[in-house]
Amino acid sequence: MSVTLYGFWRSLAAYRVRVALNLKGVAFEEIAINLAAGEQFGEAYESLNPQHVVPLLKHDGHEITQSMAILEYIDEVWSSPKLLPGDALEKAQNRALALVTIADTHPLIVPRVRNFLNSEWNLDESEQTKWAQHWFALGNQSIEKSLIKIGKAGTYSLGNELTLADIALASHVIGANLFKVDMSATPILQGIFSNCMRLPAFADAHPLKQAGAPTVN
Amino acid sequence: MSVTLYGFWRSLAAYRVRVALNLKGVAFEEIAINLAAGEQFGEAYESLNPQHVVPLLKHDGHEITQSMAILEYIDEVWSSPKLLPGDALEKAQNRALALVTIADTHPLIVPRVRNFLNSEWNLDESEQTKWAQHWFALGNQSIEKSLIKIGKAGTYSLGNELTLADIALASHVIGANLFKVDMSATPILQGIFSNCMRLPAFADAHPLKQAGAPTVN
Repeated sequence: MSVTLYGFWRSLAAYRVRVALNLKGVAFEEIAINLAAGEQFGEAYESLNPQHVVPLLKHDGHEITQSMAILEYIDEVWSSPKLLPGDALEKAQNRALALVTIADTHPLIVPRVRNFLNSEWNLDESEQTKWAQHWFALGNQSIEKSLIKIGKAGTYSLGNELTLADIALASHVIGANLFKVDMSATPILQGIFSNCMRLPAFADAHPLKQAGAPTVN
Repeated sequence: MSVTLYGFWRSLAAYRVRVALNLKGVAFEEIAINLAAGEQFGEAYESLNPQHVVPLLKHDGHEITQSMAILEYIDEVWSSPKLLPGDALEKAQNRALALVTIADTHPLIVPRVRNFLNSEWNLDESEQTKWAQHWFALGNQSIEKSLIKIGKAGTYSLGNELTLADIALASHVIGANLFKVDMSATPILQGIFSNCMRLPAFADAHPLKQAGAPTVN
C-alpha cells in the first residue's frame, strides 16, 4: 500500500489527516506510534521523523510531517473533493480558521508541553487540565468570533461545502470535549462540529474509535 | 495605500509578513498594535481581528489573519518571486519546515502564554525565560534534523533559492537570539539565518529596527 499514516489514537493532529484521507477516499494503512510509551523518541521513528511527533504521512517513499502541510499535500495530490477551494482570499480565510487551532491552540496542550509543566514545576494533572481548558476556551472564542466576522458559516465553516477548516475545527472540538470545556458560548462552532460528525469520514476517524483507545462507557 | 500590516515591533509573526512583503516588493503601511499595552484587546482592533493577535493584513478591504495564511496569500496574490515553488512534495517540505516554528514553537512563547504562567502559577521572568529557551532549543533540534533529513539545504533551507521556510526559520532564530538560546548545535540553521540576514528584505524587517523598539547598545 502506498499511503501510510503514522499516528496515535488520541492525537488530534493524526485525526485531521485521517479525516482528510477518508474524505478523499484514499486507502491507507495506519501505524500507531505509542506516544504514551515514548515510541516517538525511538531510533526507528527518529529516522522517519526527527521532530518526534505524529502525524507523519508516507507516500511514494517520501515522508511528510506537520498536519497542516500534510492536509495541503493531500489536497494537491488527490484533488477531489477540493478542501481549499476558491480564490486567494477564500483560501486565506480557510487556512486562517484552521490555524487558530493548529497553530495557536493545539500545540499548547500536547503531551510534551503538559509533561514539561509537570517535570519543571510539579504541576499536577488538575493544573494541566486547567491549562488545557484555558487554551481550548480561548480558541473557542477566537474561532466563534472569526466565523462571525468572515460571515460565511452555513452547514460548515465557509458555507455549505466542507473545507479544510472544518477538519481542523472538528479536531479542536474533540480536544475541547476531552477536556470537558463548556461549548455553550460557541454555538456556531458546535453546530459545524455536529454537522461534520454526521459524516462517516469524520465519525470513523474519531480518536476513541481507533485501535488502542480506551473503552468509553 | 491598499496594503496595511497591523503588527508590533517585537512580534515574530509580524516579522514574517514584513519580510514576505519586502521580498515581493509590495509597498505597505504598518500600524503598530501595542501588545504590551493591551491594544489588541481594544474595541478598535477587536473589530478587525477578534483573535486579539497580530499580524493582520488588510488588502483591498479584506482582513486576513494568521501569519502562515498571510504568507500563502501574499505568495498567491504577488506571484514573483515564488515563495512556495515546486511540486506537491516540495511545497509540503517547505510548509512543514515553516510549521515547526509557526505551529510547534512560536505559539508557546508568545506574551499571552508567558502572562498565563505568571498569573496562574506566579512563575517569574526567569522561569518564563527557561520556558522559552526550552521550546526554542527543541525547535532548533527539530529544524536542524529536518533540514538534514530533507537533504536539500544550500544557501537556504531547500537549496539556493529563498522560500517561505526561510522566512519562518529566520523568525525562529531571531526569537531564539532574543532569549539567548545557544545556536552552536544547529550550524545549518545558523548558516541559513546568516545568509537570510544579508538580504535587506530580512535585515530591514528585524524587530529591533522597527518603530517602538528599544535602542540596543
